[in-house]
Amino acid sequence: MKKLLKFTTIFLFCVCFFGVIAYAATQGDPTGATKQTVNEIGKNASLDDVAKTAASTKIGLNYVWMILCGCLIFFFQAGFAMVETGFTRAKNANHTVAMNLVVFLVGLVGFLVMGFAIMFGGVGDAPVYALGGHMPLDKEFALGGWGLFGYKGFLLAGAAYDVGVFVYFFFQMVFMDTACTIPTGGVAERVKFSAVILNSLFISAIYYPLYGNWVWGGGWLSQLGTKLSLGHGVVDFAGSSVVHAMGGAAALAGAIIIRPRIGKFDKNGKATAIPGHHIPMAVIGTIILFFGWFAFNGGSTLAGNDLRSAIVIVNTMIAGAFGGLVAMFYVWKRYGKPDTSMTCNGALAGLVAITAPCAFVNSISAIIIGSIAGLLVCVAVSIIENKFKIDDPVGASSVHLVNGLWGMIALGLFSDGTYGDGLNGVAGGVKGLFYGDPGQLFAQLIAVAVVIVFGVGSQLLFWKITDKTMGIRVKAEDEITGLDIPEMGALAYNEFEQKTL
Amino acid sequence: MKKLLKFTTIFLFCVCFFGVIAYAATQGDPTGATKQTVNEIGKNASLDDVAKTAASTKIGLNYVWMILCGCLIFFFQAGFAMVETGFTRAKNANHTVAMNLVVFLVGLVGFLVMGFAIMFGGVGDAPVYALGGHMPLDKEFALGGWGLFGYKGFLLAGAAYDVGVFVYFFFQMVFMDTACTIPTGGVAERVKFSAVILNSLFISAIYYPLYGNWVWGGGWLSQLGTKLSLGHGVVDFAGSSVVHAMGGAAALAGAIIIRPRIGKFDKNGKATAIPGHHIPMAVIGTIILFFGWFAFNGGSTLAGNDLRSAIVIVNTMIAGAFGGLVAMFYVWKRYGKPDTSMTCNGALAGLVAITAPCAFVNSISAIIIGSIAGLLVCVAVSIIENKFKIDDPVGASSVHLVNGLWGMIALGLFSDGTYGDGLNGVAGGVKGLFYGDPGQLFAQLIAVAVVIVFGVGSQLLFWKITDKTMGIRVKAEDEITGLDIPEMGALAYNEFEQKTL
Amino acid sequence: MKKLLKFTTIFLFCVCFFGVIAYAATQGDPTGATKQTVNEIGKNASLDDVAKTAASTKIGLNYVWMILCGCLIFFFQAGFAMVETGFTRAKNANHTVAMNLVVFLVGLVGFLVMGFAIMFGGVGDAPVYALGGHMPLDKEFALGGWGLFGYKGFLLAGAAYDVGVFVYFFFQMVFMDTACTIPTGGVAERVKFSAVILNSLFISAIYYPLYGNWVWGGGWLSQLGTKLSLGHGVVDFAGSSVVHAMGGAAALAGAIIIRPRIGKFDKNGKATAIPGHHIPMAVIGTIILFFGWFAFNGGSTLAGNDLRSAIVIVNTMIAGAFGGLVAMFYVWKRYGKPDTSMTCNGALAGLVAITAPCAFVNSISAIIIGSIAGLLVCVAVSIIENKFKIDDPVGASSVHLVNGLWGMIALGLFSDGTYGDGLNGVAGGVKGLFYGDPGQLFAQLIAVAVVIVFGVGSQLLFWKITDKTMGIRVKAEDEITGLDIPEMGALAYNEFEQKTL
Repeated sequence: MKKLLKFTTIFLFCVCFFGVIAYAATQGDPTGATKQTVNEIGKNASLDDVAKTAASTKIGLNYVWMILCGCLIFFFQAGFAMVETGFTRAKNANHTVAMNLVVFLVGLVGFLVMGFAIMFGGVGDAPVYALGGHMPLDKEFALGGWGLFGYKGFLLAGAAYDVGVFVYFFFQMVFMDTACTIPTGGVAERVKFSAVILNSLFISAIYYPLYGNWVWGGGWLSQLGTKLSLGHGVVDFAGSSVVHAMGGAAALAGAIIIRPRIGKFDKNGKATAIPGHHIPMAVIGTIILFFGWFAFNGGSTLAGNDLRSAIVIVNTMIAGAFGGLVAMFYVWKRYGKPDTSMTCNGALAGLVAITAPCAFVNSISAIIIGSIAGLLVCVAVSIIENKFKIDDPVGASSVHLVNGLWGMIALGLFSDGTYGDGLNGVAGGVKGLFYGDPGQLFAQLIAVAVVIVFGVGSQLLFWKITDKTMGIRVKAEDEITGLDIPEMGALAYNEFEQKTL
Repeated sequence: MKKLLKFTTIFLFCVCFFGVIAYAATQGDPTGATKQTVNEIGKNASLDDVAKTAASTKIGLNYVWMILCGCLIFFFQAGFAMVETGFTRAKNANHTVAMNLVVFLVGLVGFLVMGFAIMFGGVGDAPVYALGGHMPLDKEFALGGWGLFGYKGFLLAGAAYDVGVFVYFFFQMVFMDTACTIPTGGVAERVKFSAVILNSLFISAIYYPLYGNWVWGGGWLSQLGTKLSLGHGVVDFAGSSVVHAMGGAAALAGAIIIRPRIGKFDKNGKATAIPGHHIPMAVIGTIILFFGWFAFNGGSTLAGNDLRSAIVIVNTMIAGAFGGLVAMFYVWKRYGKPDTSMTCNGALAGLVAITAPCAFVNSISAIIIGSIAGLLVCVAVSIIENKFKIDDPVGASSVHLVNGLWGMIALGLFSDGTYGDGLNGVAGGVKGLFYGDPGQLFAQLIAVAVVIVFGVGSQLLFWKITDKTMGIRVKAEDEITGLDIPEMGALAYNEFEQKTL
Repeated sequence: MKKLLKFTTIFLFCVCFFGVIAYAATQGDPTGATKQTVNEIGKNASLDDVAKTAASTKIGLNYVWMILCGCLIFFFQAGFAMVETGFTRAKNANHTVAMNLVVFLVGLVGFLVMGFAIMFGGVGDAPVYALGGHMPLDKEFALGGWGLFGYKGFLLAGAAYDVGVFVYFFFQMVFMDTACTIPTGGVAERVKFSAVILNSLFISAIYYPLYGNWVWGGGWLSQLGTKLSLGHGVVDFAGSSVVHAMGGAAALAGAIIIRPRIGKFDKNGKATAIPGHHIPMAVIGTIILFFGWFAFNGGSTLAGNDLRSAIVIVNTMIAGAFGGLVAMFYVWKRYGKPDTSMTCNGALAGLVAITAPCAFVNSISAIIIGSIAGLLVCVAVSIIENKFKIDDPVGASSVHLVNGLWGMIALGLFSDGTYGDGLNGVAGGVKGLFYGDPGQLFAQLIAVAVVIVFGVGSQLLFWKITDKTMGIRVKAEDEITGLDIPEMGALAYNEFEQKTL
């Protein structure tokens, strides 16, 4: 050690000594080189050259924006893993965290092989503004002019081997992934690992892409505006319904079919609290989700020079903060303590709710939407648990389904008409009921109905069928001792002494 | 399980099989579509069209830069939460981590409702280069020409409903948030949750915005250059004083008023070490802060095409690394072991110190500034604890106040005149004492005095008044058993066996 | 508390009340200000002005891209720290996590003082497209025309004080850092902290920069194309060999020289599993690495308007996911459980393998490359442990060395000729064996040989010499009780009850 210290001291001394000499000897001009280029390009450039530079930079900016936002959204994966693992028990922590990793791996396969083509196979040139050029995704299956699903871009092979398609796939994949990971929260601590894998395949290949096609891929819900004059058709800016409500529907259906965890309800049907084993992990996870949400909503402009992203991210921030505060004060008032987990869920609820309307409303509306979401999640958690006796360990359905639907309705109420010109082929800004367009609200309500009927319905079916065939629930004794050894083969924390709950 | 494996094997086989067929059948040109657009735009575009594309891309780039940097800065929230929680005790972990989440939620309310308008209500067109257009923030209250506070933009309502204002709010909000979260470290493990909420409101609505206005919002400290010829007036590139020293002042004042934790000093007044309960959490938190700091400093150019960001981030990296190394070797030499927590604090100290001067100095100066910061934090921690008998659990005042002020002074010493032309209305680059301008150093020293008098002073007042009215400290028995149950209603780790310290 | 609630309720009420009034009173136009600017710039701008705007925005975009990608890559630091700490034992957790922080601090010194100049001192104008202007890095030492090392840019002083050089340094520094941190995994749980510091200096100042110069800095391996007509010379898009295989070589050499941990092999030489103490930490770390990898590979275009980044990131995603899945199913089939740690290692293996070829192959090839990597890592872990009796605690050599080399070979097989025109001075796209160019594969195999001979060789030498002089391994009793107290002076978790393994 002493030798090292001596060595390092001498080393650092030399660094400084020679550094000062080197520095004294020469002098750089910290913008010289670059100024030169800029000036050179400026000089004697033809209009065509300049036009090319400007155009390629513009498209490049859109790619940079979508890729970096996509990365931050991918990071949701870590957020969900931490929230779910932190809010459940230590004896299942390996199982819970592994589910949250594996849904992404499996989801990629389903979306790459099939889901993307179904969702966006016929999206046409809609995203071209951002991505440049002609999008080779031009096959939509329609009935009577109403789009049902796309069928081009399987495996990103052939004509889909195109930068525009690839960047779009990347961005959409991380959205899909979020929908995939939400249901793991509803069935946590008792579900078979294999059943989760199967559900991820179902969600990524069929379930999510179908509804996604209807709203974002040029399908029938997006056509309600042009065909039936219902505002701009169903509008969902960044996925309150497409991602969150659909994910939450899967969580709710799973929680219903799999039935409550052993010990959740006593003989009289009264719910017992099963507290999480690692609150700091859950809080950090919540902060990660909040962080990623700016990209989730902001990136949904698809274009780096769509300055509306500024409105989007501030509304996102406002709604999340007010959701968290309202939930905290509600619980504080009602139960006497500012429960940390409900504060987290309140913030997430606000974020889910603002996801659809974030681009179309002003700051005051964002306050109202977020505050109501914070209240809603508290009430929903209580009703789902105490009234319906459904055991949703991390409140996934209250956060994502209930508030996803609230966000869709909020868009139909508060949109102020300052944005959305041309969306879904309809001229003018998107306007909610309070700004004079009841048709938009009606379209949104149709989307709500579709999520409930198709979303919850098909997931009930999925879990029921899987239960009957391969089984979705681990053995009772495994559940009691914890899923980590029987399902994963290793404990999450094999060195920490625990009191197993 | 076997069924699933079989199923998946077949599934994957099909994927590959059909994939190869699909691939063989068609061939894409991976830049075809986009090339076409770029060429099309290039062809026959009028000068006006090209000019519009170029201008909107330029402004779009600035928005992308500020939004993405703002996101990374928001992520500080996770870093602070982990550092503070890791360096304190398990029995208070829920309380500590929750404080770090809630200061953001509350801080947003204070800054949205009032703080932003006070800080930037009169900033005028200064940020226009980056944000485009005319900024509708034109109300500054001044006395004898010296700006004191702004008063436009409350709630982002009315004329402030503007993309330029919103993106600026987003970026400034995450800076403010950092100042809000620093004091929680100084009062941790004994403060009432409600007192922290109140302090966050005070900081976000009044305390931070006032000083912020004086330095960044066009207020009197920024006018010292134009009015009294003191260099460029007070210059603080990314907030060594505005964010860190002001946050650290709040931490110091809080730690003084709330008095030491039970057991921190023995009967003879000798300090006892109270080690953190989760070193890996604290180290990861430190890395997160380091990560966010690149955006914190780099993003402060406000403009994506201000290439000086390159100098900024490298200086940031250098100062942080040297700060960490010097602190590590100092402690190693002095106490025999390379203490991990002091290494973390040293790195953070280097980062705090370089925050003001990062844009104005060269790499050798960054080495010196960071190295001194690493030494300074070790000495400051020891003096504050052993001489002044102040108990600052995570060293917030040593890291943020002491080194924030050192950073301000360093700017007045090492700025080399290669950057800052036009800053605060003064022509020419910012120059420190070593490069010939004692006036700049004098301006910086005035800022130091203001932080100490106004920052520490007003926070002493705040904590004193709050203590007298609602109380700021939990009951002694709650402190001894831990704050998690009495304050938050739930343990952070209810399943891990602990030896309570 | 009640006071606070009352206060807050009134406060929030006022917020909403005045907010609505403020809102009703005035009306903003959310894009007004900015539209105006864009239109103004558009009007009557001269061609020269527009050209300057376009050029500076283009270069600005490249800086933004490289800086933000560089930040995400820096975040690798957190990922590696978590993976390594999670996969090792609690009694060494402070030591393990601290190593992962300190390698960066030390690595910066080595790379700043010397490494960068050696690696890129003679890179010339190659990165100019992205960085703008003339790069003042024009000193390469060559023998017979074959470049061996550069020698300009020491300390970033003098002529290197240039924005282009600085941004390039930032980006390259975080790559180097990755190579520095990999070997800590191979020698974990028994290595002296001081030996790791020394190795980081060696890697950052000499080891990494030399090989890096040969491949990326204009050195002899990159000249194999122009001089010997071997395809484009050695091509390694984002560092399968430069970063990962070289880092893995250091891990392997270290693990060999330092010998296995006590208890790893029983008297008969049979390996015992030593499970990690914190699986969620390791999984979150893996997700962080996956997250950063998009920037690691995508950012390596160096230019924000090189749209090929879209292909790069999707291939990265595909290979990582397939790597993880194949490893999971392989282990599941073979040992009966879907082991979480091998799933993580499989994903990382896929990512390492695609790092070299990501820009040159299509989606089907990415599936194949990733799947093979997932298999390879399982087999390699088993062989290294059971055949060679080498104890590599986190599988660093299997993940980074074996798959880094596989990635280099894969590039020589699957590159499809659609990208890489002009790379290393050779016209036309990069083509692998399957697309008709055996020369490229041959060049790649030479790189493989160099990594094994120079990489493993020089590291064996380093560890051997260090062992003979200052010693590289802690005392046996320290290893048994854990390294945290004897090496770092503090336990990672001093409050959690543990069963020491």
